[in-house]
Amino acid sequence: MAESGVNGSGTVGIGMIGCGTVGGGVARLLAEQSALYQSRLGGKRLELRRVLVRDVAKAKGTGLVAPALLTADADAFFATPDMPIVVEVAGGRGAVSQHFRRALEASKHVVTANKSLLSAEGPALFALARARGASIAFEASCGGGIPIMTALQFGLMANRIEAVLGILNGTCNYILTEMVQRAKPYATALKEAQEKGFAEADPTLDVSGRDAAQKLAVLASLAFGAHVDGEQVGAEGIDKLDVADIHFAREMGYTIKLLAIGQRAGDGLSLRVAPCFVPDALPLAQVHGSFNALSVYGHANGHTFYYGRGAGQMPTASAVVSDVINVASGWYPRAFASMNLWCDRQPPVKLVDPAQQSSRFYLRVNAKDVPGVMGKISTMLGDAGISIAGISQREVSVGKFVPVVITTHQAKLGAVRDALARIKALDATDGDPVCIRIIDMPEG
Amino acid sequence: MAESGVNGSGTVGIGMIGCGTVGGGVARLLAEQSALYQSRLGGKRLELRRVLVRDVAKAKGTGLVAPALLTADADAFFATPDMPIVVEVAGGRGAVSQHFRRALEASKHVVTANKSLLSAEGPALFALARARGASIAFEASCGGGIPIMTALQFGLMANRIEAVLGILNGTCNYILTEMVQRAKPYATALKEAQEKGFAEADPTLDVSGRDAAQKLAVLASLAFGAHVDGEQVGAEGIDKLDVADIHFAREMGYTIKLLAIGQRAGDGLSLRVAPCFVPDALPLAQVHGSFNALSVYGHANGHTFYYGRGAGQMPTASAVVSDVINVASGWYPRAFASMNLWCDRQPPVKLVDPAQQSSRFYLRVNAKDVPGVMGKISTMLGDAGISIAGISQREVSVGKFVPVVITTHQAKLGAVRDALARIKALDATDGDPVCIRIIDMPEG
Repeated sequence: MAESGVNGSGTVGIGMIGCGTVGGGVARLLAEQSALYQSRLGGKRLELRRVLVRDVAKAKGTGLVAPALLTADADAFFATPDMPIVVEVAGGRGAVSQHFRRALEASKHVVTANKSLLSAEGPALFALARARGASIAFEASCGGGIPIMTALQFGLMANRIEAVLGILNGTCNYILTEMVQRAKPYATALKEAQEKGFAEADPTLDVSGRDAAQKLAVLASLAFGAHVDGEQVGAEGIDKLDVADIHFAREMGYTIKLLAIGQRAGDGLSLRVAPCFVPDALPLAQVHGSFNALSVYGHANGHTFYYGRGAGQMPTASAVVSDVINVASGWYPRAFASMNLWCDRQPPVKLVDPAQQSSRFYLRVNAKDVPGVMGKISTMLGDAGISIAGISQREVSVGKFVPVVITTHQAKLGAVRDALARIKALDATDGDPVCIRIIDMPEG
Repeated sequence: MAESGVNGSGTVGIGMIGCGTVGGGVARLLAEQSALYQSRLGGKRLELRRVLVRDVAKAKGTGLVAPALLTADADAFFATPDMPIVVEVAGGRGAVSQHFRRALEASKHVVTANKSLLSAEGPALFALARARGASIAFEASCGGGIPIMTALQFGLMANRIEAVLGILNGTCNYILTEMVQRAKPYATALKEAQEKGFAEADPTLDVSGRDAAQKLAVLASLAFGAHVDGEQVGAEGIDKLDVADIHFAREMGYTIKLLAIGQRAGDGLSLRVAPCFVPDALPLAQVHGSFNALSVYGHANGHTFYYGRGAGQMPTASAVVSDVINVASGWYPRAFASMNLWCDRQPPVKLVDPAQQSSRFYLRVNAKDVPGVMGKISTMLGDAGISIAGISQREVSVGKFVPVVITTHQAKLGAVRDALARIKALDATDGDPVCIRIIDMPEG
């Protein structure tokens, strides 16, 4: 059993799979803060023993770890003695999933930042860890340097969590901030984000909302005690957003944010990633640039809010190394074994149909500037049982069309979509109507 | 050894000292969420076994716990079998300190919200706990329902903390919010806060900054790894604040907040509670009403920010019961024993002289509206080596005097105070000059 490795009082050996940006940060922290960590661990020393990479020559070039530690040979890596902790910062699935399982089979504790693997294969991995007396720590999988997993796993234990609302993708938040604060169109903001390194050359995973959906799956499993697969989380991205809607949001006292939302609905859960109108008075509206944040609503402590850098070398490495220290001290494996918080011990989530979920909505319809069109739109919404909170025809014209901006009272998404489909079919309207959820989470 | 009580798999008995507002909330959570906690604890059941109060008749009247559990007899309380966890929510010192020690002597784990006791007697209590195989958990001692102690103890382990800036007193923040948003004078805002139950009949502990100073002492011990006594933390309160300064702050893009600030300064620490100008762009400026918040600057993960309800029955009870669950699972006692984070294992803090600390300052001097007075003030500041960033004479007159508002570049507090003493002595000025620190903590 590897547990002896963290239960002893001497040196705790660490293996690392992957040595990219985050791995380099982990190596740097372990080297530079060695004395601090030894003091916090009551004398135990952390030592990086071996690093498994795909291409040793390339990894040597980065200068991030001592060349002698590098190997591309998985057998050699796993044969390294006295290495009870494995840090997995390679990301993705495939071969990484195999290495992950091999580490657990050998009763090694695994510290990971891999939300795509956890959101897809979580229950099997957690069950394997438990069966082998190992543990999985994953603070870095969501929210980068913000200790939100620690908060959800240990800080909020007395609470039945009612809802989590998060800004979990820094790339999207950076792009949206540029669109809001500098009125840049989406394509321009994306291009600049790519030039500055805030967005990948292929930004699909981020801007589609899929990355945030994977993170929400991992978060929701902890928060609601039900296993969620990332693929089950519906996601709308930011790539269809128009600066017009961002402008109207601001006029009305809202900021558009890509939110990952999980909330209880009857005996099920509602899970969704989508652009939302966030009231400026909520802390989430004040999260700018590449920062991440999470609002948690607990039945006892009400609203708590967590904010910080959601990505980047050192913030993510900070989360990984914090986990390493907690595992090495022996307390995290103890918690993992004795508590019932992880997705291998939870029933599969019961998801509610998003169409049946109510909220307020912002709608925008491009209408011909002809008499009676606003009346027609109002009537069609009313016939669908959707009560209008506000409606105005804006002076800005889009070709021959003018935007009609509507806010609704509480209505079901399905009813709103149906009504918008009928409105779209009118001769007097043009293009796809816009429909964005308005967040009304009370403060407290 | 009481550890057997939390290491077993059956029922974990809990004793409680005190049964006021927070105690009632703890009893309510344990009763109402019994099944949830049992599930999270992998089958272990939590049971409130005995409650020690000063006045049984009075406690019965509140209806918060079953009358049979109440006792005023400490011997009977401590003789209760199978009670490995004691929750201390009586507050204060004196007899409570004796009960606290008696629980530890009996190897019972203690969960407490008592910042005044911890900030004064922390090292002795923690050492006693360690010697007896017990532990002390204290999430509820600072920040109410916000899990900031969990974050500092476990979530940010990889970081050398550079600074903490907190809004730690809800009463003061409520009063300041009323002064800022509704231009109420201090006395009016205080009176209304008392009527609404946000301030005590004797508000001194809160408005003087002493309560925040005690909390900063507890926080700083964790954050900086040096034992701090609450009495060592200098505090200025909000009771001298003038609405004029709140108004000028807003004009310049700042909000005045009572901040508890701890930051490294050379090989020592600077610790201080004082009203400060907080730039509106920082999340701390957006904390309104009775909410609390903490900004933490880590060397690796940069700025993280934590926000929520800092007091009140259920938020504080949430923090207490979360600790109870973590202790009952056995992991917290393991962490307490194996790590080196608590104030019994830390050297006494080395405090730097606040007079030697630099920052930017807001100054206000009431000056006679006569030619040359601004020049005189500027010259006296310049002679003291204090560089002026902005200076203006305001049109609002205070009797025969007009306020001169000055912002400085980085300057030492001691030099600023000396210069203001000389300026105060001028015939052309009236009353005490105002000096408020401007916060410039960078985002990131």
